[in-house]
Amino acid sequence: MRRRDVIRGLGVGVAAGAAGTLARPALAQSNPKVSWRLTSSFPKSLDTIYGTAEIFAKYVAQATDNNFQIQVFAAGEIVPGLQAADAVTNGTVELCHTAGYYYVGKDPTWALATAVPFALNARMQNAWMYYGGGVDLVNNFLAKSNIYALPCGNTGAQMGGWFRKEVNTVADLNGLKMRIAGLAGNVLAKLGGVPQQLAGGDIYPALEKGTIDATEWVGPYDDEKLGFYKVAPYYYYPAFWEGGAMLHLMFNQQKWNELPETYKGIVKAAAQAANCDMLAKYDYVNPQAIRRLAAAGAQLRPFSQEISQAYFDAAQQLYAELTAKNQDFKTIYESMTAYRRDAYLWFQVAEYSYDTFMMVQQRGNKL
Amino acid sequence: MRRRDVIRGLGVGVAAGAAGTLARPALAQSNPKVSWRLTSSFPKSLDTIYGTAEIFAKYVAQATDNNFQIQVFAAGEIVPGLQAADAVTNGTVELCHTAGYYYVGKDPTWALATAVPFALNARMQNAWMYYGGGVDLVNNFLAKSNIYALPCGNTGAQMGGWFRKEVNTVADLNGLKMRIAGLAGNVLAKLGGVPQQLAGGDIYPALEKGTIDATEWVGPYDDEKLGFYKVAPYYYYPAFWEGGAMLHLMFNQQKWNELPETYKGIVKAAAQAANCDMLAKYDYVNPQAIRRLAAAGAQLRPFSQEISQAYFDAAQQLYAELTAKNQDFKTIYESMTAYRRDAYLWFQVAEYSYDTFMMVQQRGNKL
Repeated sequence: MRRRDVIRGLGVGVAAGAAGTLARPALAQSNPKVSWRLTSSFPKSLDTIYGTAEIFAKYVAQATDNNFQIQVFAAGEIVPGLQAADAVTNGTVELCHTAGYYYVGKDPTWALATAVPFALNARMQNAWMYYGGGVDLVNNFLAKSNIYALPCGNTGAQMGGWFRKEVNTVADLNGLKMRIAGLAGNVLAKLGGVPQQLAGGDIYPALEKGTIDATEWVGPYDDEKLGFYKVAPYYYYPAFWEGGAMLHLMFNQQKWNELPETYKGIVKAAAQAANCDMLAKYDYVNPQAIRRLAAAGAQLRPFSQEISQAYFDAAQQLYAELTAKNQDFKTIYESMTAYRRDAYLWFQVAEYSYDTFMMVQQRGNKL
Repeated sequence: MRRRDVIRGLGVGVAAGAAGTLARPALAQSNPKVSWRLTSSFPKSLDTIYGTAEIFAKYVAQATDNNFQIQVFAAGEIVPGLQAADAVTNGTVELCHTAGYYYVGKDPTWALATAVPFALNARMQNAWMYYGGGVDLVNNFLAKSNIYALPCGNTGAQMGGWFRKEVNTVADLNGLKMRIAGLAGNVLAKLGGVPQQLAGGDIYPALEKGTIDATEWVGPYDDEKLGFYKVAPYYYYPAFWEGGAMLHLMFNQQKWNELPETYKGIVKAAAQAANCDMLAKYDYVNPQAIRRLAAAGAQLRPFSQEISQAYFDAAQQLYAELTAKNQDFKTIYESMTAYRRDAYLWFQVAEYSYDTFMMVQQRGNKL
């Protein structure tokens, strides 16, 4: 391969600015000193999610000989967790690590960056984001809030949550007070439930006293730490509202624009690596945690077909309402669902049949 | 957060050497000029896999202001695709992008880096590699070949391949000549089949003439390019021998050791990002390709329960033989299967039940 071909090869998918740096003297902009603050929406106790921001910051520091330092702050150290994006919009910090669906109060479109009921699983979310135009669509929308965002982490399909009593029919949801946020709460309300917003630390006492009847959180590894199994033993699955919840790094638009092209490249690669890393960690720690929870008395229950289908149908009603009145939501939602149709056809073939066979072997104690 | 805490935070998971660079003057080793050659085991026509090496090289170049240049060569440009690892061992090139299972002729242990029959799916493979000790175990073994390796790409669960005639029973496999490599071929032989090794370009004419009865390749997007559907219309699924085939970057050990710690950090992050990217691309392009193949006449067929179970049982026989006589294989295989047992229990809960429900909706035309 000739030198010219190599350069052309390297140019595949490179932004014009980055390709342009090939011609510049190497030392012209090598590793300028940059020091940024990242506010996480998560406490340090959620080491999987919080730790992902630290891994990202480590990758960036390593790639720049420690000249680009990103200091990670836990929720509450600079601003409360649910105000992380606002702190980026107004320039209090240069970036945050957060979940878009925390901001549905501003506009439900924010939720499409993370997960909405019956959306994509974790692998599909990556496919749509990186190759299906998802990253650009989300950024077209977030630009209105002075934000540029990159995918950075995924929990995989979450658990449906902890219930004090069994729920078998839609009638059992009537009046059910459940800690559940965002669009998932809107769907629950359509079925007669009463969604509640509670910060992490307030959930356990509310559940213990019966102020709420149920709560959803994340999955076995994170849920175990909060001890819900002691006061609400029925552990339902899955979280139909979080089939593959994706986290994002959100950057203040001016600060992002000011970065040298090489630093933008480093940040993009580091974010994608950390994105991969977080899911790998969850997929490693959750299997052990579900065993411990079951041993400690958690009662695993799938949602009934009646509840699952009613929840799906109510979600479709909500999407009909949202797409009728919100053009931003409609544009992104329709891109995601167009991919989802084909993806859930293909995944039935090789992936699902492989897993199904393996699960049958697992149940037969053959693994 | 105080400065000391930040530095400690950055230290999580950082190798001692990298953490040590915090104290060094920034310019001491900033971006030294390095120029390496990467030989890929794949032709440029497999743009998903071949392209992953280019994406990796691009990330590294961007992160170093183009001072660390990795030139990517297609299979055959320097050495044939199946000799890529040898070229690294003997220092002909600094690194390659390849699949460990191409080298089972040396030792079957190589296959555990990529995929063996009834091993992990793509997400589990990442979990085990990054958090379950897989990367270290593989590298302990590859050190004997003067190689250091990092995960870099995954195809997801592959298709079982193209058959000229339907196969329904184990008897139908008797004498069946199938292009299939590595341990998968050994398992097929136990069931009476006749595994064949053929390079990519030779498969179509052999299948057309009936010199072989069947071939496996990758999945819809790659298979479509080779046109197998025209001469062997029965497209079976899944490839029980490749539930999540992982590619690797393999580095010459001396060359790896000579890299500055900062460059090692860049390479690790770039490899992990490219690992994520390849699966995302496959998951985006395969759904469209399977639709086109079905429209062009491909006949989708799941392997029968009889064949699937017989293949599983034969694989267990092979593993009993290999673990009895090969300590390297045993060590890595047992680490992988210990995780697999728990992983396939947990994945049945949230992930599988979510996907199952969504697939039911897909079949009901509700997505």
